[in-house]
Amino acid sequence: MRDAGAERLGMDAATPTDPVVPIASAARRNDARHVLHPWSSHGALRPVVVAGADGAHFWDEDGRRWLDFSSQLVNTNVGHQHPKLIAAIKAQADKLCTVAPYHANEATSEAARLIAELAPGDLNRVFFTNGGAEAIENAIRMARLHTGRHKILAAYRSYHGATAGAIAATGDPRRWASEPGPPGIVRFWGPYPYRSAFHATDAAQECERALAHLADTIMAEGAQNVAAILLETVVGANGILVPPDGYLQGVRALCDAHGIAMIADEVMAGFGRCGEWFAVDRWNVVPDLITFAKGVNSGYVPLGGVIMSDAIAADFATRAYPGGLTYSGHPLACAAAVACIGIYKEEGLIDRARALGEDIVGPALQAMQARHPSVGDVRGLGLFWAIELVRDRDTHEPLVPFNASGGADAAMAEFAAACKRRGLWPFVAGNRLHIVPPLIVGEQDLREGLAIVDEALDIADRHSVG
Amino acid sequence: MRDAGAERLGMDAATPTDPVVPIASAARRNDARHVLHPWSSHGALRPVVVAGADGAHFWDEDGRRWLDFSSQLVNTNVGHQHPKLIAAIKAQADKLCTVAPYHANEATSEAARLIAELAPGDLNRVFFTNGGAEAIENAIRMARLHTGRHKILAAYRSYHGATAGAIAATGDPRRWASEPGPPGIVRFWGPYPYRSAFHATDAAQECERALAHLADTIMAEGAQNVAAILLETVVGANGILVPPDGYLQGVRALCDAHGIAMIADEVMAGFGRCGEWFAVDRWNVVPDLITFAKGVNSGYVPLGGVIMSDAIAADFATRAYPGGLTYSGHPLACAAAVACIGIYKEEGLIDRARALGEDIVGPALQAMQARHPSVGDVRGLGLFWAIELVRDRDTHEPLVPFNASGGADAAMAEFAAACKRRGLWPFVAGNRLHIVPPLIVGEQDLREGLAIVDEALDIADRHSVG
Repeated sequence: MRDAGAERLGMDAATPTDPVVPIASAARRNDARHVLHPWSSHGALRPVVVAGADGAHFWDEDGRRWLDFSSQLVNTNVGHQHPKLIAAIKAQADKLCTVAPYHANEATSEAARLIAELAPGDLNRVFFTNGGAEAIENAIRMARLHTGRHKILAAYRSYHGATAGAIAATGDPRRWASEPGPPGIVRFWGPYPYRSAFHATDAAQECERALAHLADTIMAEGAQNVAAILLETVVGANGILVPPDGYLQGVRALCDAHGIAMIADEVMAGFGRCGEWFAVDRWNVVPDLITFAKGVNSGYVPLGGVIMSDAIAADFATRAYPGGLTYSGHPLACAAAVACIGIYKEEGLIDRARALGEDIVGPALQAMQARHPSVGDVRGLGLFWAIELVRDRDTHEPLVPFNASGGADAAMAEFAAACKRRGLWPFVAGNRLHIVPPLIVGEQDLREGLAIVDEALDIADRHSVG
Repeated sequence: MRDAGAERLGMDAATPTDPVVPIASAARRNDARHVLHPWSSHGALRPVVVAGADGAHFWDEDGRRWLDFSSQLVNTNVGHQHPKLIAAIKAQADKLCTVAPYHANEATSEAARLIAELAPGDLNRVFFTNGGAEAIENAIRMARLHTGRHKILAAYRSYHGATAGAIAATGDPRRWASEPGPPGIVRFWGPYPYRSAFHATDAAQECERALAHLADTIMAEGAQNVAAILLETVVGANGILVPPDGYLQGVRALCDAHGIAMIADEVMAGFGRCGEWFAVDRWNVVPDLITFAKGVNSGYVPLGGVIMSDAIAADFATRAYPGGLTYSGHPLACAAAVACIGIYKEEGLIDRARALGEDIVGPALQAMQARHPSVGDVRGLGLFWAIELVRDRDTHEPLVPFNASGGADAAMAEFAAACKRRGLWPFVAGNRLHIVPPLIVGEQDLREGLAIVDEALDIADRHSVG
């Protein structure tokens, strides 16, 4: 095998002894042979081999460079390779990489203090996990133990993770291959004005009817059996569905009326993505449990967790909490959280995300909607936006069918490829483009990225009846 | 609040204005207020605040120092703060901390290549997770998809993690609070010569009868419904139960006979702990799936995964694998794995673990058994040993009852405290002491630690009828 270093220096051009087959780098070769990537088949996969990244950009081994409008998986909120975050990780690595989770240490304590300080209401205690799925698993367990009830109400059009409990709570097709799952999950429909499950004609009516539907579902399931209502504060991967004003307050009221725990999944929406520390802050709603991950430390070291109310924490003052994991409160991950929260504050990134959304992204997307017949809906807040592409604006028929794959999603694949060719890395899901750049994205870069989207939409328009 | 730095400098002694209450460090205070530790109640918890660690030792804020016979949670196989591992983490942090799991990168590819190279047989492809529980979740999913069957046979006296699927598969009392769990888990009894479920009188008979019991269970459940037999190659937290020679070969044969996938959980037993790269190597058994975590990078950055056979990988050559997580193949975690595997090789730690077990630990524990009436059983391999403490050697009555807590476990608590007072950090579980030091532990330290155990056993002897 050839030397990978030589290949990266461009020395892998065809030679007399090997005139035909292009030579893959060691990274590509080993990836193809030995890695199974999430939600993917490895047979024809040819992933980008990321060689480096900085701020809102990343590049591959051949020097191709993209403006990152995906924040990878909506996690690199402070951008790639932020020097202060790297410095904090290196300093903690020199000090103490890991301890057992039954020990305490400075980094974990400080991360917990900061997160509790930022969290709304009396959410003052943190159980750390490695990521979002485990956060959901533990939030569900806490809600069940706290209420002594078993049923969990979870929404269609949601994603909560891929461990058995989290995937059972998930309301999108990624769940199907893992069924039958654990018992006790009850599904409801959330508000989605553009595709109302309730035949509503405006957002206020959608809110009212979605709450009535939720109240009916609680009634039919037996309120005394319902441990929790679990929902993404702003639905992420399933469409950046911003709840109409009043919805989350209504959910909170239903929970209060029936002694149900409210779990706000802020794995994607939290830590600045919505222009708030936590998305619930936008509506001044205090849930009983908040799950987080991703933005807490921008994913530089795997970390997630649950923030719990004083009432739920009190359950475990004398009774041992029956859950755990080896890397709970991992010092390296928590030191990254401390530094990341510091960066959000120092650079004013939370307010910046809100302002960029209101001043630049929202208006630009609305202008595109006016110009492009393929844009059916525009919605979002902070740096968390979606445009929904349709074949027909009147019927709202999506540009590609629900859960399309294997060619049926060609129109969206073509659109995504057009973005990539122009140097923009898009986040495409179903018939939607999500606009989710790092919160540090430069204004000029942001405008240029939006201009690329605008151009690429011409391609989508060709699949639309106008 | 006082300045944490000042407190660490010893400036927190009583002052005229605060003469009585000792002042906790910020780390302790914030931990007490804001952290929920796994499997713990926070009310009376007073964890050690770990201030630093090096090799086989760690110390607290007050300078108390312990020889680590626990490897934290049996994960710091290369010891604390190994300079080469730290250097690799820092180098990767400078290069690329995180990418989306749909991208490739050099660190992840190389980690996958190394792990596939070490794994037995045709286990050549890796799906990376953040830890052991998620590894189990995905191994179960793969086995079900590969076989088209649903039932998972899992052992009593096992621990597989605390997410819904992993805790359902777990065979110890930590499962109880999370029941009812997902359907399809079927429990069987594994071999345990000291407390035989099969009334066997020696290890060979235990092996034969345990296999007959497993075969009967498969028959009664319908072999055509059984997706996998899941077991820890050497049972870890539930007692370091080393399978009798022939047992794992027998399990493999049953799986072959019935088209069942064999999942070897090596989260704790793998990566040198048993004096082998993988514990199955001891018996030359090739499972279909191996789960790993902990030792893969000594826990310096959260990492786990599943290694799958070519036949299972082939299922996902053209069909997308329906599972994932944001931090799958995390570059920082994978760079730590590459470095950690390099350290195992350079320092010959795998062979060293085997030799230390055979030459020092085993003989020392057997000598203790001869001297101390409280030592009922000694077992282990590599640096993975247990001594089982009993009230009565004739009846095997354990020193504390099964799943004892809240005072009923006082004898073991007293024994553990005696170890800690002497500067040894023990791993105590039920009525057992597990001897699981880092693989780099110095011979002198190892002998001194064993001498402390020997001394502390005098206390256990007082609770024994002799």
